[in-house]
Amino acid sequence: MNFSTKLLNSINNGIGLCVGLDPIPDRLPEKFRNDSESLYNFNCEIIEATKEFASAYKPNLAFYERFGVSGWEQLRKTVKAIPSDKIVILDAKRGDIGSTSEAYAGAAFDSLGGDAITVSPYLGRDSVEPFVTREQNGIFLLAVTSNPGGKDFQELLIDGEPLYVYVIRMARLLASKRNVGLVVGATKPSLWDNVLREAVDLPLLIPGVGAQGGDPVEIRNILSGYPAPALVNSSRAIIHASSGSDYAVAARNAAAFLFDQLNG
Amino acid sequence: MNFSTKLLNSINNGIGLCVGLDPIPDRLPEKFRNDSESLYNFNCEIIEATKEFASAYKPNLAFYERFGVSGWEQLRKTVKAIPSDKIVILDAKRGDIGSTSEAYAGAAFDSLGGDAITVSPYLGRDSVEPFVTREQNGIFLLAVTSNPGGKDFQELLIDGEPLYVYVIRMARLLASKRNVGLVVGATKPSLWDNVLREAVDLPLLIPGVGAQGGDPVEIRNILSGYPAPALVNSSRAIIHASSGSDYAVAARNAAAFLFDQLNG
Repeated sequence: MNFSTKLLNSINNGIGLCVGLDPIPDRLPEKFRNDSESLYNFNCEIIEATKEFASAYKPNLAFYERFGVSGWEQLRKTVKAIPSDKIVILDAKRGDIGSTSEAYAGAAFDSLGGDAITVSPYLGRDSVEPFVTREQNGIFLLAVTSNPGGKDFQELLIDGEPLYVYVIRMARLLASKRNVGLVVGATKPSLWDNVLREAVDLPLLIPGVGAQGGDPVEIRNILSGYPAPALVNSSRAIIHASSGSDYAVAARNAAAFLFDQLNG
Repeated sequence: MNFSTKLLNSINNGIGLCVGLDPIPDRLPEKFRNDSESLYNFNCEIIEATKEFASAYKPNLAFYERFGVSGWEQLRKTVKAIPSDKIVILDAKRGDIGSTSEAYAGAAFDSLGGDAITVSPYLGRDSVEPFVTREQNGIFLLAVTSNPGGKDFQELLIDGEPLYVYVIRMARLLASKRNVGLVVGATKPSLWDNVLREAVDLPLLIPGVGAQGGDPVEIRNILSGYPAPALVNSSRAIIHASSGSDYAVAARNAAAFLFDQLNG
């Protein structure tokens, strides 16, 4: 199935919920503390608890790479444990010269088996192209990020328009297979008019609600009428909703609550 | 030892040679073809053959990640096999929101044991800071990359000055531990005046000679009188100088030849 169809199907209608699988060891429930595959085993339970509400899962590779070979193995197993009708977004923010980006695409899509990867645009068009050649796989290109420092470069004005607008326009040029979306942080509401006008009909991945402070109800209003699929991500506020023995129920409740906020 | 001192010591004087450990399976000599640890075993021989001339080694993580868990393990072992007086630069082009960049720093410096990592600047200052807090570890921040698409964003003008100048100025603000350098591609000679004026005394990592077309002699002339350490990287032109049984001698000769071009 091509990426565009899978993404649409995963969301059904409305705004899709994306659960960020970024486990923090100190916040894992006690039963996972002496477990050599704690990340994987925890993720399996989180996936099971939240799958009724989730369209997508997004492991951030940093939280696995820090544990070296074991972390990479647990990431691989986590991807396999995600139901096949969900979108798996590898949050990796990769981007390198062409031949190297090709190797990263192999890592993400062939070796790890993700549906999509996040890509950082600083190296320009030929660094992004190797990620968009397969219609069954997609990317979300960083446009406006959710962190405070996002403004340092992304909002610099070039001939009166911010850098992120140039990035969005490049994304549109690469979207002939309908497998190119944008990352737009939920924490910058003043930029949304501009972003949506330029994005036209590119899919959106929206991090920054929950722990980072973005408001899901505001996002719902902003996106009303936007013609393309949108996924809103929450990581810590769902997976670490509780560190007690009720972690699975707490994650389920947090996912259900956010889903309702997003879909009215 | 702090990064700044180790870098200076590794170069002695003149321009340092950095060998890019980016093995391409199709170009490995025959004896490595049916070897489950071909990347690692090949790297060990390349390191041995080139260490007389090399100040630094730079594995690009993409070429290991594509082989999943085995690739990651071979990368870890490769880092351990590099002599301790050489600088190990993990070419990873990472960069994420603060807490995630912190996890990437843990992956690079604690788990893999690199001395330095390349960092991509699109997410701004707070995405770079977590990589520069340890004085024994450093970064090379992407300023001007060697690929043709590098110009797409890096050379856009903001108030008359290109984006890469803003990146270089941020690098200088973060360099209080003298562990922040810049990546500047050898393929853009017309930008060097501007780059060196802004860089002032930041260390440089210069990819793009050899297969990508940058001219080592031109680089030597440009850098004459620059007061900080500079490493010029070559990957394929050294490690895949020959795919025949003379691969080690060919790599040694290619390293020696480039070292001489760089140092007159």
